Amino acid sequence: MGDRNSVTSPAPGQTGESPNPGSPAALDASKLKITLAPTLKPLQPIETLCFGQTFSDHMVVATHDPEKGWSAPEVKPYGPITLDPQCSCFQYGGNIFEGMKAYLGPDDKIRLFRPDMNMRRLERSCARLALPTIDGDAVLELIKCLVNLDRRWIPKESGYSLYIRPTVIGTSPGLGLTASDHAMLYVIASPTGPYFAKPIYLLAVSENVRAWPGGTGGHKVAGNYSPGFLPQRTAAEKGYDQILWLFGDDRRVTEAGAMNFFVVVKRDDEDGVDLITAPLDGTILPGVTRASCLALAGDPEFHKEISIRLHPQETVYTMSDLAKWSSEGKLLEALAIGTAAIVGHCDRIGYEGKDIVIPGDGMGPVGTAIRKKILDIQEGRTEWKGWGVVCD
Amino acid sequence: MGDRNSVTSPAPGQTGESPNPGSPAALDASKLKITLAPTLKPLQPIETLCFGQTFSDHMVVATHDPEKGWSAPEVKPYGPITLDPQCSCFQYGGNIFEGMKAYLGPDDKIRLFRPDMNMRRLERSCARLALPTIDGDAVLELIKCLVNLDRRWIPKESGYSLYIRPTVIGTSPGLGLTASDHAMLYVIASPTGPYFAKPIYLLAVSENVRAWPGGTGGHKVAGNYSPGFLPQRTAAEKGYDQILWLFGDDRRVTEAGAMNFFVVVKRDDEDGVDLITAPLDGTILPGVTRASCLALAGDPEFHKEISIRLHPQETVYTMSDLAKWSSEGKLLEALAIGTAAIVGHCDRIGYEGKDIVIPGDGMGPVGTAIRKKILDIQEGRTEWKGWGVVCD
Repeated sequence: MGDRNSVTSPAPGQTGESPNPGSPAALDASKLKITLAPTLKPLQPIETLCFGQTFSDHMVVATHDPEKGWSAPEVKPYGPITLDPQCSCFQYGGNIFEGMKAYLGPDDKIRLFRPDMNMRRLERSCARLALPTIDGDAVLELIKCLVNLDRRWIPKESGYSLYIRPTVIGTSPGLGLTASDHAMLYVIASPTGPYFAKPIYLLAVSENVRAWPGGTGGHKVAGNYSPGFLPQRTAAEKGYDQILWLFGDDRRVTEAGAMNFFVVVKRDDEDGVDLITAPLDGTILPGVTRASCLALAGDPEFHKEISIRLHPQETVYTMSDLAKWSSEGKLLEALAIGTAAIVGHCDRIGYEGKDIVIPGDGMGPVGTAIRKKILDIQEGRTEWKGWGVVCD
Repeated sequence: MGDRNSVTSPAPGQTGESPNPGSPAALDASKLKITLAPTLKPLQPIETLCFGQTFSDHMVVATHDPEKGWSAPEVKPYGPITLDPQCSCFQYGGNIFEGMKAYLGPDDKIRLFRPDMNMRRLERSCARLALPTIDGDAVLELIKCLVNLDRRWIPKESGYSLYIRPTVIGTSPGLGLTASDHAMLYVIASPTGPYFAKPIYLLAVSENVRAWPGGTGGHKVAGNYSPGFLPQRTAAEKGYDQILWLFGDDRRVTEAGAMNFFVVVKRDDEDGVDLITAPLDGTILPGVTRASCLALAGDPEFHKEISIRLHPQETVYTMSDLAKWSSEGKLLEALAIGTAAIVGHCDRIGYEGKDIVIPGDGMGPVGTAIRKKILDIQEGRTEWKGWGVVCD
């Protein structure tokens, strides 16, 4: 880890000045300044880890102002940030984030899972909230630096990883209702373990709506999440773990909690099973794990590996469809899918006072096969189409 | 203003301890601690004031934690706040706010306008985002203290006031997707002048949607605002000032920018005019100025004063209705209404490549009469049903 002293190490030949003083600087990972934590925190025993509660020793920070553009990024000791109370991020919710994981493989290499997809989504989320333009490739370079510096925080055990949370907050001062042209990027990292040990009970809800056409449901925007806390609390009081978000008069199935949702349905032609999820119509988060499940489900190479023929279906489906499939014995599995959970299984969906029960004991064969495959790729036990990206 | 020293002055008999150590403390204004700014900032010439850019000398702060409840509130010098980057307010947008104004009357008394309505809405907004319960009456006491302490910041000139921004942010640490049971209340104050000097050009937009049934559009939630920045920027590029937000396939008219929207329409029975605005169906912010306009419009006493018979109508109306009323010569005025703007007038609405032009030069008689009446009440020139609340 080198010296523990507080040092500044710009890349060779870089002065920290914008190359073109007339235009705002883009985020430039080569200008990174590193200030190491004077003392390192003790690692926490992995069996006591709770999602997003423990943070590593360092964080990445860069700031944007409309004249200078992006500052030289810094890695510095994890710590608080200080902001004016009039800032846009407090007043108007102009914040976006990403969720990613770094894994330590059996070859002792650190891998990220399809980080390019997260970085493109980060760029799109910033654009949706009219935050300053950010170069996701530069953010990825900074993330790679952080996970290498804090690699002792990546648990070696399977199912464990270092969860990475890149965040961009609007920091323009002033209460005027306009886009924030000041911003702060920061990246924090938290060691984490398996998310859902148990099956998930979902409560299907239509009186609250997570996202709508013309809104921000297709972007990873902070303000998408807090409106779900009250319905979630109500669901918990009724004995359910998460909300199954419905949309529209026809009760379309959209997402589960903050995860994409899939069902496995037996086909009438007996040619394997359908893996069904809602289409990306602007109300659905384009999840990296979602895209990966769909890609695997459409891949004959994967079908051979698992001896199940899967048919990926991005299509509108409703609670009536779920109830019908259930009553006909065709509803085989229900899966909640996301970066934190990877693949979790649901065995009960409450709707209009009754429960749709998904048969079987534990996660079914499709969920199990996809989860295993993705975890094998993420943890570096198998190479697959460049999805596992080594952090050198 | 008393001593300028940094002092702490709890109310007599208060120790700052919760009276019941077993239950979290409610926000208690009687426990207020005051730390005065060691030096006061120079006042800014009122003609240079920009909305929400200049802040007074002090702010109110109180914090909530799930065990102790609300801390003893403090008035302290306006300054930055320091938070952990993992806080809910950055990650999940769990922030709410209010907008109010304090006016200095000809009797040299400070008045707030129907502050009870803001405080009830503040309570409801907190509840909607599952933030800790807050007692709006206690917040109001703190606001009264702040405006008295910073009364030199309230411009005396008509149309000017001290804009008050109570804000509650979720401060729970951790990335778990649950309600924030830690929070910070703060109140900041900014001297402000007339908001819209010119008529407003609105661009009617249906491809982006501000709010949806089952969402948070009926609450003053931070995350409602930033999704509007991109459409707003696009509208500005086309020469419009604000968005007229439409909803649904029938293109219902909802709000204008971050303001409620009213139209004045000639009646077929020649019995005065209708003052029409969208109903509170969950997608419309229940504005204090909106409610006041509707109350005035339904009040025979006010009709007598202005010699116009108004019929308040909270009803669904569409762009087709607007176009029809316009073509029939019945669309007399279009008004954007809110705390910051009070009453602004719109003279042009862009829709599907054409402009609906509202006739007349400057604000029409209904907008002018309502604006004058509300300003007279706010600025203490007239007493009306207890709407102007003196801050002793």
